[in-house]
Amino acid sequence: MTEELNQSPKMQKLLELSAELLDLGHIGALMGWDQQVNMPRGGAEERGAQSALIGRIMHEKLTSDKTGQFFADLEKEVGDLNAETDEARAVKVAKRLYEKQTKVPLPLLMETIKATTMAHEAWMEARAQSDFSIFQPHLKKIVDLKKQYADLFKPFDHIYDPLLDDYEPGMKTAEVKEIFEKLRPQQVELLREIAEKEAIDNSFMGKYYKPEYQEIIGRDVITRFGYDWERGRLDVAAHPFTTGFGLGDVRITTRYLENDAGSALFSTMHEAGHALYEQGIDKKYQRHPLNGAASLAIHESQSRLWENLVGRSKEFWSFFYPSMQMLFPENLANVSLNDFYRGINKVEPSLIRVEADEATYNMHIMLRLEIEIGLMEDTIQVKDLPEIWNTKMEDYLGVTPPNNAQGVLQDIHWSGGMIGYFPTYALGNLASVQLWDKMVEQHPNIPDEIAQGKFETVLGWMREHVHRFGSKYEPQEIMLKATGSKITPEPYMKYLRTKYSEIYDL
Amino acid sequence: MTEELNQSPKMQKLLELSAELLDLGHIGALMGWDQQVNMPRGGAEERGAQSALIGRIMHEKLTSDKTGQFFADLEKEVGDLNAETDEARAVKVAKRLYEKQTKVPLPLLMETIKATTMAHEAWMEARAQSDFSIFQPHLKKIVDLKKQYADLFKPFDHIYDPLLDDYEPGMKTAEVKEIFEKLRPQQVELLREIAEKEAIDNSFMGKYYKPEYQEIIGRDVITRFGYDWERGRLDVAAHPFTTGFGLGDVRITTRYLENDAGSALFSTMHEAGHALYEQGIDKKYQRHPLNGAASLAIHESQSRLWENLVGRSKEFWSFFYPSMQMLFPENLANVSLNDFYRGINKVEPSLIRVEADEATYNMHIMLRLEIEIGLMEDTIQVKDLPEIWNTKMEDYLGVTPPNNAQGVLQDIHWSGGMIGYFPTYALGNLASVQLWDKMVEQHPNIPDEIAQGKFETVLGWMREHVHRFGSKYEPQEIMLKATGSKITPEPYMKYLRTKYSEIYDL
Repeated sequence: MTEELNQSPKMQKLLELSAELLDLGHIGALMGWDQQVNMPRGGAEERGAQSALIGRIMHEKLTSDKTGQFFADLEKEVGDLNAETDEARAVKVAKRLYEKQTKVPLPLLMETIKATTMAHEAWMEARAQSDFSIFQPHLKKIVDLKKQYADLFKPFDHIYDPLLDDYEPGMKTAEVKEIFEKLRPQQVELLREIAEKEAIDNSFMGKYYKPEYQEIIGRDVITRFGYDWERGRLDVAAHPFTTGFGLGDVRITTRYLENDAGSALFSTMHEAGHALYEQGIDKKYQRHPLNGAASLAIHESQSRLWENLVGRSKEFWSFFYPSMQMLFPENLANVSLNDFYRGINKVEPSLIRVEADEATYNMHIMLRLEIEIGLMEDTIQVKDLPEIWNTKMEDYLGVTPPNNAQGVLQDIHWSGGMIGYFPTYALGNLASVQLWDKMVEQHPNIPDEIAQGKFETVLGWMREHVHRFGSKYEPQEIMLKATGSKITPEPYMKYLRTKYSEIYDL
Repeated sequence: MTEELNQSPKMQKLLELSAELLDLGHIGALMGWDQQVNMPRGGAEERGAQSALIGRIMHEKLTSDKTGQFFADLEKEVGDLNAETDEARAVKVAKRLYEKQTKVPLPLLMETIKATTMAHEAWMEARAQSDFSIFQPHLKKIVDLKKQYADLFKPFDHIYDPLLDDYEPGMKTAEVKEIFEKLRPQQVELLREIAEKEAIDNSFMGKYYKPEYQEIIGRDVITRFGYDWERGRLDVAAHPFTTGFGLGDVRITTRYLENDAGSALFSTMHEAGHALYEQGIDKKYQRHPLNGAASLAIHESQSRLWENLVGRSKEFWSFFYPSMQMLFPENLANVSLNDFYRGINKVEPSLIRVEADEATYNMHIMLRLEIEIGLMEDTIQVKDLPEIWNTKMEDYLGVTPPNNAQGVLQDIHWSGGMIGYFPTYALGNLASVQLWDKMVEQHPNIPDEIAQGKFETVLGWMREHVHRFGSKYEPQEIMLKATGSKITPEPYMKYLRTKYSEIYDL
């Protein structure tokens, strides 16, 4: 049947439509990349119109009158959308995209675009002035719009479900809550124990590290990881990110901070992790409905795996530290490998999520998740956010933001209407360790290989069990197939405890 | 009436359609720029599909059934399309584009795209192997298709007219022939006289010039010209070119040759000339039907003006030569300003058009024009091209290509179906001197200003008389308004003779 279906006129039409939508999406991505990497200021106005046009053409293609009936017919032809064939899954993924797009009435869509555009400007201003009141009415509006959006997907178990589902297909609020309920007390306890120990001195990390040399080692590291330069490139941008214009062109960016030994290097490994995922999708999914990732959490599992489980490991540095010392002898000649390793793994509760270490990162996420759920459930009001934020920071991390810029205003997400996104960061952390454990169970030699600068087995395993499937499977399916378990916090906590017990002698 | 027309629903619709087409064109240009400047090899396949999609969407928008009637109605509303209002000219320019696009039957369009795609591959192979026979059948096919194309525009005075008109709106083959008939004997005579004189020794030009320093002076020069970095950037590509994604983002590229003092610098000035034109279009034409250039010849008049009339002048170097000597003391400390000036203006008949000096450049163009007209008139056969090429090279320049790679296969244009393009290069040369003469007549102080590194008057005059109009006027209208004359060869010949009489003591 698969053979027949593949050649059916309806299936052909789906493949063509998907290819066009992907092409348009990738064109939009190129415009976005260029905007952040190359575009002179004067180009903003016309670029804005060009991006909007691409968005409009995509929307028109997807929501034309005939498309609804087309999907209904196609589904009938395919039967079980959960069948394991590419065809069934292609229809499922395309139908999901279609339904998400068409369920939203045009006025709500337009109002949301307008509100987030204004909210983004307001957020930038609010953060610059550290004044939440500038952002408050805009965030209120966005929360109202998100409630209207969620209501379109009734019935649901929880009003947060439709938002979460935008980033984690099939994931439920109840699952995430349960995971985080287990995680919170253990993370808090670990942090308490670490806090009792003497702080690590990693002041050598803040010396002058020549950006050109930071780039040399960054490029060397990700080349050894297996990043394919024939299908990508590394540039400088204000914020590190990964973007792709197809399977053949997946680019990453970073930024070099003169007085930070780790920022650029770890962000380069992180983005390379994202890029390795997209470069690893099966070539047969090029311009195909399944050309994509399973979810943001699975994406993040890959970036975190290369950044943390590989890049912050002792084995990794036993191989790379000599190169690091060679490039920066004035800073590191007298720093031992062990002190360097402890330095890059120093745990220090801090105000800013993006700078958080492995032990504290998830606490930042939990705080945001609780606030997002509260906002959607109406148990938290936007006006109270600065106070709630600061109280939770004190409770979870023992630090209090001196101002709202370093507190509730630090993240861009809410201003863009991205409510439901944050938990994927923490889920990615958990998934990264589950995948890692299963891989090392099957290939116990991996730590030794890493100590020799060899990453083929790691990349090969991820290709085999995660990358190649594209968006064929939902995130929990990927985890079940690869590890035998859905996303669960225990392996992550065990990993943290083992790692920090050694570092901090707990 | 203008006021009313501007607000008419039909005019509004035209402005919207034009804005969308411009946006799509600029998106396509960004994809092309990225392909040449940044794209990794692996991106080619998907980029090809993306570019084709944008082309298809543009074609569909322009050729939809309703558009023909729309233009007919609009023309009735406007009346005289040659009226001097923006509205009348906008309709004229848009209608011209529409008619050019719709006159071509889809099968012919598709066959041409296919033929040129294959011809381009064949040409690359042919040039690599210096074997014309590889390219010959493809060029034959392209000539046949171009004849079919031209026939669509019957009645015409000459079969070459429709091809020329694609690049020079309104220009006729008879005009170009007349111009070139006058030019040829004078250019030949000038070259003969120069050939009798002792050759200039400019061997210092071929020493090692550090690319980084070449870039420093290149950027300095075009900054002083007035290139707006807030609305552009300079990058490295295999071939120098200019491309714009709107009035707010006009980029140029160059390439740095280690053993050539002039190649990058003159090409940077040349491309900056193109870019200054586009940056100088009136802001009111942003995303408007008149956002464009008058023609390729007018475009080339600007690039040639900055490259040659400014950049190869004695005044220019009296200001910049100290900087050049500072950057390259090992090559230039003992070369006098006058020797340098003579060195960059050395006349030497050569095989390759793109490396030709001012005195020989037009001869390369005449040769190509005669061949193109002969091919279209059927008085020249494709199979005879290598022989005809070599004979004409000997006649006009006294040099004979040692192989076809350096002869008939040197240019990319024909492989892309661009027949009718070459004469615009020579017309641009002629126009550049006409504009220059008129400007200096009105501002005799300009040479002194250039000797002080000041270019505001030059740029201001070009803005006022050429740039700001966008594509409102046809090329000959621009020339008439700015100089009181259509394009004519006398000023150019006078310029060459004066310049080289001094340099070669004729």
